[in-house]
Amino acid sequence: MSTTTQVDTWSRYSIGDQREAGLREIEQRFGSQASRSKDVIAQHSHDESFHDPKQPDLVVFAESTKDVSDCVKICANHRIPLVPFGVGTSLEGHVNPVHGGVSLDMSRMNRLLRLSTEDLDCTVEAGILRKQLAKELVAHGLFFPVDPGADATIGGMAATGASGTTTVKYGAMRELVLSMCVVLPNGEIIQTGRRARKTAAGYDLTHLFLGSEGTLGVITEVTLRLFGIPEATAAATVQFDDLHEAVNAVIAIIQLGVGVARIELLDEAAVRAVNAYSGSTLPEKNMLLLEFHGTETVVKHDAEVAGGILSQFGGTSFTSTTDQAERTALWRARHEAAWAIRAQRPGAQIFVTDVCVPISRLADCISETHYDIAEQGLLGPIIGHVGDGNFHVIVVVTPEDADEMHRVEKFNERLVTRALSMGGTCTGEHGVGLGKIPYLLREVGEEAVSVMRTIKRAIDPNDLMNPGKIIAES
Amino acid sequence: MSTTTQVDTWSRYSIGDQREAGLREIEQRFGSQASRSKDVIAQHSHDESFHDPKQPDLVVFAESTKDVSDCVKICANHRIPLVPFGVGTSLEGHVNPVHGGVSLDMSRMNRLLRLSTEDLDCTVEAGILRKQLAKELVAHGLFFPVDPGADATIGGMAATGASGTTTVKYGAMRELVLSMCVVLPNGEIIQTGRRARKTAAGYDLTHLFLGSEGTLGVITEVTLRLFGIPEATAAATVQFDDLHEAVNAVIAIIQLGVGVARIELLDEAAVRAVNAYSGSTLPEKNMLLLEFHGTETVVKHDAEVAGGILSQFGGTSFTSTTDQAERTALWRARHEAAWAIRAQRPGAQIFVTDVCVPISRLADCISETHYDIAEQGLLGPIIGHVGDGNFHVIVVVTPEDADEMHRVEKFNERLVTRALSMGGTCTGEHGVGLGKIPYLLREVGEEAVSVMRTIKRAIDPNDLMNPGKIIAES
Repeated sequence: MSTTTQVDTWSRYSIGDQREAGLREIEQRFGSQASRSKDVIAQHSHDESFHDPKQPDLVVFAESTKDVSDCVKICANHRIPLVPFGVGTSLEGHVNPVHGGVSLDMSRMNRLLRLSTEDLDCTVEAGILRKQLAKELVAHGLFFPVDPGADATIGGMAATGASGTTTVKYGAMRELVLSMCVVLPNGEIIQTGRRARKTAAGYDLTHLFLGSEGTLGVITEVTLRLFGIPEATAAATVQFDDLHEAVNAVIAIIQLGVGVARIELLDEAAVRAVNAYSGSTLPEKNMLLLEFHGTETVVKHDAEVAGGILSQFGGTSFTSTTDQAERTALWRARHEAAWAIRAQRPGAQIFVTDVCVPISRLADCISETHYDIAEQGLLGPIIGHVGDGNFHVIVVVTPEDADEMHRVEKFNERLVTRALSMGGTCTGEHGVGLGKIPYLLREVGEEAVSVMRTIKRAIDPNDLMNPGKIIAES
Repeated sequence: MSTTTQVDTWSRYSIGDQREAGLREIEQRFGSQASRSKDVIAQHSHDESFHDPKQPDLVVFAESTKDVSDCVKICANHRIPLVPFGVGTSLEGHVNPVHGGVSLDMSRMNRLLRLSTEDLDCTVEAGILRKQLAKELVAHGLFFPVDPGADATIGGMAATGASGTTTVKYGAMRELVLSMCVVLPNGEIIQTGRRARKTAAGYDLTHLFLGSEGTLGVITEVTLRLFGIPEATAAATVQFDDLHEAVNAVIAIIQLGVGVARIELLDEAAVRAVNAYSGSTLPEKNMLLLEFHGTETVVKHDAEVAGGILSQFGGTSFTSTTDQAERTALWRARHEAAWAIRAQRPGAQIFVTDVCVPISRLADCISETHYDIAEQGLLGPIIGHVGDGNFHVIVVVTPEDADEMHRVEKFNERLVTRALSMGGTCTGEHGVGLGKIPYLLREVGEEAVSVMRTIKRAIDPNDLMNPGKIIAES
């Protein structure tokens, strides 16, 4: 790919020879760490979503915070956009370089730098993969609970404010990141906080950069809270004819303070997909899957109390176990769900929605969404982090079918409108990226987006850091 | 007090007739809600700390978000500084109007606006007192756990990022505020977030305003996470000869994931003060006080497991109970500690330090601090939120004794230096205010403070919102 074909209509970015001079300076500094190879460029042009790919001019593989700072400085001098890239598992086009420029690949910065079993914290480089970290921690009897499904980088998870199945007990990235090392748009390096468990010292820079999706700077190191692997884990499943009663049971469990670590929902369509995929014979009803962490005594007690409540609300076939093999079998439907749903239409792909509402509105929100799915003739089973009020419609799509894609978009728009009208958010855990810019505006209003824009302009006046995301400058 | 005597050396603020014109406009708009009465002015000139009082020109009692917005707009038009005031329980001069102007009293905005038992959240006006809220919630079987000791306003607690004894289980304000209504420096009104339990939608404005101490806008409403009052509560106490072993026992309890709701430390000097004050005969050793929340079965189990660990590390006289009257008696030493310490020197006052370190360094930090207290001939018992690594030296002082006050200041400076060198923070829960501006700089560095200053300038370009706090403009 030749950069001279790159036409950038935004005059604030360098184009043509001017940009090329900057790219050459980067190549000189980074040698074999920089690449314009076709495959590498293509790989860094998109994430896992349907948003239009856009090729970067150059990919740079950072190996240290100093590398990141140097690269950012050269980009700043030459007005070249820079997009941090982890492993590309994001779902709203976060890493697509919509104005070209440099894709800064963080995946080589993948070391566990420091671990304290006493303080239950660690510091990692931003490019470490979630599963790699888990492997390193297990040897110390520790784990980091945020599990977004994909094997994302910790830096990417911090940048998008990720969460997942364990948020109901342990919190999301926003609760579990103590501090970060960040390279600012001018190349300066800051630490956003300290290792102390709590602080009231100045503006909360950690939370400013968490979820900022690379638009304010590049996260290079992350300090995380950790937890001891629980002595015992109990898993449970239960079926419900009535979705409202399933949610009411979950509300009652949370009100009582039962220490549930995960509460996932598969709707009837998701269970049906699993049965078709794996030959299982699960009752084709709404299914809740629960997990409890603690000592043997506590998890047995918690599972029993939860089981009582679930039955009281009409839950049937409640089954629980602390045995590892039996647990895996019980939760198998959840683990297989995404594959099972995709397999329903050979060659198809999936489009994943992400609204989150106050739990009191969850059953209504899902019911109305079910109605809409049926009316639109879509195939869209639902998986929910029901304890948080967050659910995903996994819509099976054929991307070549423009009409279907159009109907899915309209469906998603109605879903977001519904969630917003219920006090919810357009994105519980995926982030805004390219895909939800107009929804963010509807969610928080012009004045709040204007504050975000003010912050963006103040910190990144030339709009070089992942431009076009969250709040696109016009 | 006459405003013509007000000399403001900062040319960016109006002075003399110009300021007076603005104040008159405010008085016209607010009628009896505005006051220049001597007593009211004096009451709004300081918080509970030793920082020099400074009189506002005018006090305005806000009764609605609209009131706040109107007042902020008039101040903006006339370049009059504005300082939000709750009930003045802050400890670093947060509410002292160092450049005069308007003290905006929020205490009349004290309503519980909305409560959802299903979503376990509520929205309150910023001026509601913590204990008033507790009273309203208890009728619904709910509670809000952040307990900083003082009966502060929820808005003040949000503005300073307060925490307290229950942070180890439930989190601090930073974890428990879902959203806020904020009046910006230009008078615009924004909602920083939604009621959904989690979100990944745009920059985290909620955390930007949490802990911003009134320097970026005025918090007028706060949406809080709530919890069901636990079915059972167990309290426990235990004594330790060796502080290091006491902390090691706490570390082991947390590692095991025992669900402890509070873990407080009184050092030997604090216990001695309590014995002297109340005639009790507690062993004059380091004392840990614990609390467990949950079902009857779980709290008994947790207390038993914790008791085993504490004994294993050399803890003696472990006592635990779920009986309400016995619990109160067990925790009596903690509740009386502040009074007992103050009573040691009749007529004296107290100066409270606030460092927080990673728990692995807590025992070292306290030991070195004990040494320093002895060497300086100070009277300074220690109370600690040991589960968080946060502790307070309650230094008994005679404010008229300039030499003693000077030694206390030097002592605090060494304490902060020690905490910073251990990866800690200069303030775990009190905030920066006037008192910790230079420490903040040492803690996070010039580059990070510069980011904070950039944000402050972008959002409040005329530096009218609580000027002179956190990052004093020069």
